[in-house]
Amino acid sequence: MRLQIDKEQFLKAVSSSDHAIASKTPIPLMANLKLELNEKGLEVTGSNSEMTIRATVPYRIGDKEIIRAPGMGATLINAHLLTEVLRRMEGEEVSLEVIDESIAKLDDGRSSFKLNCIKADEYPDIDLEPTGTSLTLPCLDFVSLVEQSAFAASTKEQRPVLTALNLEAGDGKLVATATDSARLAQKSIEIEPLVRFRCNIPAKILGDVTRLFDNVEKLTISVAENRILFLFGNTIVSSRLVSGDYPVTKAIIPQTFNFYLEVNAQELLNAMSRVSLLSSEREPVVKLSMREEEVEISAKSESAGSASEHLRIFSFTGERLNVSFNSMFVIDAIKALKAEDVTLCFQAEMKPFVVKNPKDDSVIELITPMRTY
Amino acid sequence: MRLQIDKEQFLKAVSSSDHAIASKTPIPLMANLKLELNEKGLEVTGSNSEMTIRATVPYRIGDKEIIRAPGMGATLINAHLLTEVLRRMEGEEVSLEVIDESIAKLDDGRSSFKLNCIKADEYPDIDLEPTGTSLTLPCLDFVSLVEQSAFAASTKEQRPVLTALNLEAGDGKLVATATDSARLAQKSIEIEPLVRFRCNIPAKILGDVTRLFDNVEKLTISVAENRILFLFGNTIVSSRLVSGDYPVTKAIIPQTFNFYLEVNAQELLNAMSRVSLLSSEREPVVKLSMREEEVEISAKSESAGSASEHLRIFSFTGERLNVSFNSMFVIDAIKALKAEDVTLCFQAEMKPFVVKNPKDDSVIELITPMRTY
Repeated sequence: MRLQIDKEQFLKAVSSSDHAIASKTPIPLMANLKLELNEKGLEVTGSNSEMTIRATVPYRIGDKEIIRAPGMGATLINAHLLTEVLRRMEGEEVSLEVIDESIAKLDDGRSSFKLNCIKADEYPDIDLEPTGTSLTLPCLDFVSLVEQSAFAASTKEQRPVLTALNLEAGDGKLVATATDSARLAQKSIEIEPLVRFRCNIPAKILGDVTRLFDNVEKLTISVAENRILFLFGNTIVSSRLVSGDYPVTKAIIPQTFNFYLEVNAQELLNAMSRVSLLSSEREPVVKLSMREEEVEISAKSESAGSASEHLRIFSFTGERLNVSFNSMFVIDAIKALKAEDVTLCFQAEMKPFVVKNPKDDSVIELITPMRTY
Repeated sequence: MRLQIDKEQFLKAVSSSDHAIASKTPIPLMANLKLELNEKGLEVTGSNSEMTIRATVPYRIGDKEIIRAPGMGATLINAHLLTEVLRRMEGEEVSLEVIDESIAKLDDGRSSFKLNCIKADEYPDIDLEPTGTSLTLPCLDFVSLVEQSAFAASTKEQRPVLTALNLEAGDGKLVATATDSARLAQKSIEIEPLVRFRCNIPAKILGDVTRLFDNVEKLTISVAENRILFLFGNTIVSSRLVSGDYPVTKAIIPQTFNFYLEVNAQELLNAMSRVSLLSSEREPVVKLSMREEEVEISAKSESAGSASEHLRIFSFTGERLNVSFNSMFVIDAIKALKAEDVTLCFQAEMKPFVVKNPKDDSVIELITPMRTY
């Protein structure tokens, strides 16, 4: 295997696929990227037990020749080392040549590297051909879907299905739901009417996927029995799916409310970040004491003391109400809404409440209050 | 104790003294700052086993009243909590009142905090009165003294005296020396001719001291038997001294050389950061192979491979010479010199070599080569 390749494009593909390489892998072979030069271009594949990323460098981009003097072949090279080497090389073009299937020679006319490499046929066969149901949508839609919901997924492994983002497509809608059972976030977007599927994607891989979008417009999702593919630009990401039935969330989300607090998002965030300094370190509980004329936000810590302040600009509808909650949940929810003003909608002191963007009905952030004594 | 105080000045003093608070202290009392309002102003003191920082907020700065409505007294408040609370408060003025010697009430008209506090008389008596020999010098001189030498001190506790920066004043010179026995850095500046002292300051506290300078022009150092004081602006820092005789370094620093390599500092840094990717992780050894026509820099790793490149612009004087060394030492030395071009001066393959700024004789960076096989 040998080629001359544009350094920037090579580095971009290598650093994309490097995202799939676990920092500590029990299988040393999987610390490597597979580089394969074939008729499509240079395929760079990285993989771990959850996901695989393949970025392909094409022979040409527009008028520009990206790969020259190709000699087909494949090899395995340590992912992090290759990424760091390319990041530091200064030349615009790099030559890569594999010698005796054991040394990869990289040269940019200035620096010369001989990296130990491994025969490609030791790498597992990873099938990245799309099968099952597929859906194409704007990348930006998928980014908002993920950013406004995935953060609420559980990070604990006790109930694996709660570590997933649940995607449900049907009736012209794609609905993403995440819940760790103390809070829930749900975002829906419009899609082509005939697509129908349901799957649970490990929530933690979705940040990796959206981070790789990099100016690409369209994303194709392809959902099969046990895995999902994300295809965009010259990149394919494959992820395992989480098995198990996702909890039915429809009945949990309240539809009518008795109390409404409208408030500037930033003011509420600042007030919560201040008073929650005086809550317990284990759980930053704050309390909202609301009546029409006055809304107080307060917190108390056994060891450190207490804090309180009054919101300056707000509008509260309803009778007097006190609600305590984990302030991190409300902070996460408000940040995900990306709205100037937010509305908190309550049914009763101990009933789950909703944090909403009054101008956007496509997102619901639901939070369970806490009992304080 | 009670007062009204300018928030910014209060926060500045509190965050300065907070630097002395260890993140985990075996004595819970020392997680607190001592706040004392007396005729000088509000003294804020933080301390750990190595150092004490006292920042004083004066009653007035120029025409501006900084402290109003004072009621003398003292108290102890958790340092990190007080810093975070003040950082997040939005008002320009804060009122502080200690109630029943157990609660400190902080209010900026918007937020109200009640912080648990402790009687001040439980705090140890820390004497910060200057005694011994003293020297006043421009802060910037002291910053360059520290930045160009202290990094070479040892971080290992086997020989405590090597964890110190050695300061020696006499004959109109102040010389700072640090060595971890594999490398040595020495910087000298000119001072008043009659001052004479010698002391070993824990090197790791010096970064804290210089970071607190903040637009102050003059620094006074006051050296006594077992401690040193740094006095600048409204701040006093006291540090223990390291006991033991500092090694005599004069005989170690070579005076004549047989080989000189002049090179652009940035080019050498870039080349070393590239090739040292292929050195062992334990010690990033690189090798310089020098002759008049060609200088190669290379590295080799058992497991990963090898790397090499040629310097583009350089001037080498002397016969052929190969020298291997820990590249981190040379990188640290070059960065400390802050020069565009640097000169490496060698006696022989296995003799300590010097990295110099050809335009500045006040700094010497000495490095012991390594044997490679």
